[in-house]
Amino acid sequence: MEIFKEIEPLRAYLKQFRQLKSSIGLVPTMGALHAGHLALIEASRKENTLTVCSIYVNPAQFNNLQDLEKYPQTLERDTALLKASGCDVLFCPSHHEMYKNQDHIRFDFGALDKILEGEYRPGHFSGVALVVSKLFNIVLPNKAYFGQKDFQQFLLVKKLVEDLNFDLELKRVPIVREADGLAMSSRNMRLSTQQRKDAPVFYQALQHAKKMLLSGKDLKAVQNEIQLMCERKPGVRLEYFALADKENLKLAESVTGQSILLIAGYVGEIRLIDNLVVGDEN
Amino acid sequence: MEIFKEIEPLRAYLKQFRQLKSSIGLVPTMGALHAGHLALIEASRKENTLTVCSIYVNPAQFNNLQDLEKYPQTLERDTALLKASGCDVLFCPSHHEMYKNQDHIRFDFGALDKILEGEYRPGHFSGVALVVSKLFNIVLPNKAYFGQKDFQQFLLVKKLVEDLNFDLELKRVPIVREADGLAMSSRNMRLSTQQRKDAPVFYQALQHAKKMLLSGKDLKAVQNEIQLMCERKPGVRLEYFALADKENLKLAESVTGQSILLIAGYVGEIRLIDNLVVGDEN
Repeated sequence: MEIFKEIEPLRAYLKQFRQLKSSIGLVPTMGALHAGHLALIEASRKENTLTVCSIYVNPAQFNNLQDLEKYPQTLERDTALLKASGCDVLFCPSHHEMYKNQDHIRFDFGALDKILEGEYRPGHFSGVALVVSKLFNIVLPNKAYFGQKDFQQFLLVKKLVEDLNFDLELKRVPIVREADGLAMSSRNMRLSTQQRKDAPVFYQALQHAKKMLLSGKDLKAVQNEIQLMCERKPGVRLEYFALADKENLKLAESVTGQSILLIAGYVGEIRLIDNLVVGDEN
Repeated sequence: MEIFKEIEPLRAYLKQFRQLKSSIGLVPTMGALHAGHLALIEASRKENTLTVCSIYVNPAQFNNLQDLEKYPQTLERDTALLKASGCDVLFCPSHHEMYKNQDHIRFDFGALDKILEGEYRPGHFSGVALVVSKLFNIVLPNKAYFGQKDFQQFLLVKKLVEDLNFDLELKRVPIVREADGLAMSSRNMRLSTQQRKDAPVFYQALQHAKKMLLSGKDLKAVQNEIQLMCERKPGVRLEYFALADKENLKLAESVTGQSILLIAGYVGEIRLIDNLVVGDEN
């Protein structure tokens, strides 16, 4: 595996491959890799001749400084995992390499970045759009892979690609879960033993809500039940639970073939998100 | 000259050249071509093996609907001029080809898009950034050419390239002027005979102001004099006249080696802009 910390040598390296008509797959990550990330790498390896993984904890997308400071950083372990996974190129730049300017452009996605995650993490998606634009322009991938866990992020990156005409295909890879249903997340590392036991509550809530909604129960009643389900566990706090259209995340009153359930909340100080398609899959 | 109205055939065509290690130059325009545009084409031809000119009157950058409707459209004449100039590729897409989504991402450049042109044309620079991002991602040029007349636009595109890591070199080409000093502009076509006679007042004002400032006159006094100079001509209305730092357009009180004068105003209903470096050139 080739490792690059700087943009220009990476570009020069990738240029050779582009001239050989290879297909380049990009897997953007913030490191602290888990099986969810490795599923992205695997998907990219199946569909491309060269897979580039980026590891960069992007300050511009953290609305909460403490969350940034506590974000797990495990580059040595990550590098070993990537080598073992068959990843071809690792790009792990410094902040100085990624941000030459102090102030940077902000993006406004309209309604899409004001709701759900956007409401609770102001500025987050602008920072995501900025770093993803950078990575797309640095790597010029043919395909880019994002996890379904960050569902709203995926829709946002889709809009970024459409509106700015990035010449690439975007791939959404299903959520990878622990045996008890907890969605894989780098933040799970920070959970205490008790918190780890409580954390699957969000996925259980999604599954329970899906069943209730499909059996015809009213959304308001379902929301109340989910709220209670979370309150029952000390240290668990629900932030939002929403039924939405999976094309545009517009909030819905009832289930359609296009529906998705999204949830976010805290276990102790750790913020977790999850989602579950209710309508037809994909 | 090859002419493309659609993105994918253009991309396919350019891909061959990219594989031959050619250098591609892009000249983005809104058509109604004049000698200023042709200077951009010439600069690109000198430095690249392939020159692509785009002609697209981008609705997203017009804050004034009337200005958009009256913007001169002379595609047949433009095509002939481009052929004669040795341009290799013309890209002239439809609105449908450029904007698939109804709502689109907005860009915020901080102070840089709030002052001068940004103050008088709200939303203008966001629209410019959007279409320029699209064109960069469609053409993937090695170099892109912009005229110095739109000085603030040049700085903004420079920030766009830096912040989003577009892999290209940005070139600023000097203003081309009519014999009487009027900066070339597609909007000049719309001037009546009398208005055309009055229009050089803005360039005269810039020259006069430069002399006064370099001879030590106070900025406030110079501004008053420029205001009077414009008022003396019926139908001429000054919008702004500013001394600024040419790296970031921060307003200045006195001349430095970094100074530029910028002016904007109306002759009748036609809005014109111009600028003049006061400090060291370039």
